[in-house]
Amino acid sequence: MKIRKRIAIDMDGVLADTESHYISWYLQHHGIAVDPATLIGQPEGHGFPDRQAVERFLHTAGFFRTLPVMQDAQEVVLALSVNYEIFVVSAAMEFPLSLSEKREWLAEHFPGIGWRHLVFCGDKSIIDADYMIDDHLKNLDVFKGKTLLFNAAHNSHATGHERVQNWKGVQAFFNRELAGASSAA
Amino acid sequence: MKIRKRIAIDMDGVLADTESHYISWYLQHHGIAVDPATLIGQPEGHGFPDRQAVERFLHTAGFFRTLPVMQDAQEVVLALSVNYEIFVVSAAMEFPLSLSEKREWLAEHFPGIGWRHLVFCGDKSIIDADYMIDDHLKNLDVFKGKTLLFNAAHNSHATGHERVQNWKGVQAFFNRELAGASSAA
Repeated sequence: MKIRKRIAIDMDGVLADTESHYISWYLQHHGIAVDPATLIGQPEGHGFPDRQAVERFLHTAGFFRTLPVMQDAQEVVLALSVNYEIFVVSAAMEFPLSLSEKREWLAEHFPGIGWRHLVFCGDKSIIDADYMIDDHLKNLDVFKGKTLLFNAAHNSHATGHERVQNWKGVQAFFNRELAGASSAA
Repeated sequence: MKIRKRIAIDMDGVLADTESHYISWYLQHHGIAVDPATLIGQPEGHGFPDRQAVERFLHTAGFFRTLPVMQDAQEVVLALSVNYEIFVVSAAMEFPLSLSEKREWLAEHFPGIGWRHLVFCGDKSIIDADYMIDDHLKNLDVFKGKTLLFNAAHNSHATGHERVQNWKGVQAFFNRELAGASSAA
């Protein structure tokens, strides 16, 4: 039996498009349309006129349940699941309200990922997998396997991990991994 | 800096006394006082006159929030946290209702364990730690570190893992581990 390698995939900013959700909630709650370009290179939330707004959104019921799915995430995750074992690993413990909302969101948008493959944690250094896809350095820096930094405005100046611009970039990375593995075999 | 070894501790049947909670809920809902001795050696829930009752309790709001704390668990976990890094690792994903109830239960009964050290998952093979304390073989069998089988009626005939009868037994095990580590140093 072939044991498939494991990919640990983050939710916020990777499976879910938190950045565009911040912008649309900001417009809705504060009446101001924030230009995505102004968020580049700033810590999460700091690019908005009211710097506390994002923190408030994260503690508001409904925020996580209504997140839009990141472009191409569903198709690429499905394609990756042929050759890899997929785990969704979210640092959900920081936001107690998010636990049930995230569970429901995943069941709706990624029904192919069963409950056995979901992990809600705090510190991701407890995760044992081969690859981790995440938009936060704090999670990738403590991971022992291969790391992919998913591009986001808040991490645009970060270095030290292979950066992927989007889910097409993730697909291309794993296509190379598989090609390398088969040529080495 | 000394890096402390990590202990992954299960909730149901280890930190929380699920067995006595099943019995008291059975009395409350079915009017029958079940003798704990009749549960020995049977799969969880099978020792009750109505075999489906436990499954129903697990999907009833309030069940997880009202679990009693296992005897001596609080004192021993606190003592262990001096020398070890403690993670609570619960297979909570199977029971969506349990997510917020477990989070609240832990905050009430184990306030010293912060959210960074909580993990709700499905398959515990994703957990990277040095020790795992659990009452279920399915969790211990896939773990790479040292395993402790916490005694329960449903696992009374199981073998292959070091069995501890209770939290005093856990404490004695780690006292031996620490004595061995210091005599080897």
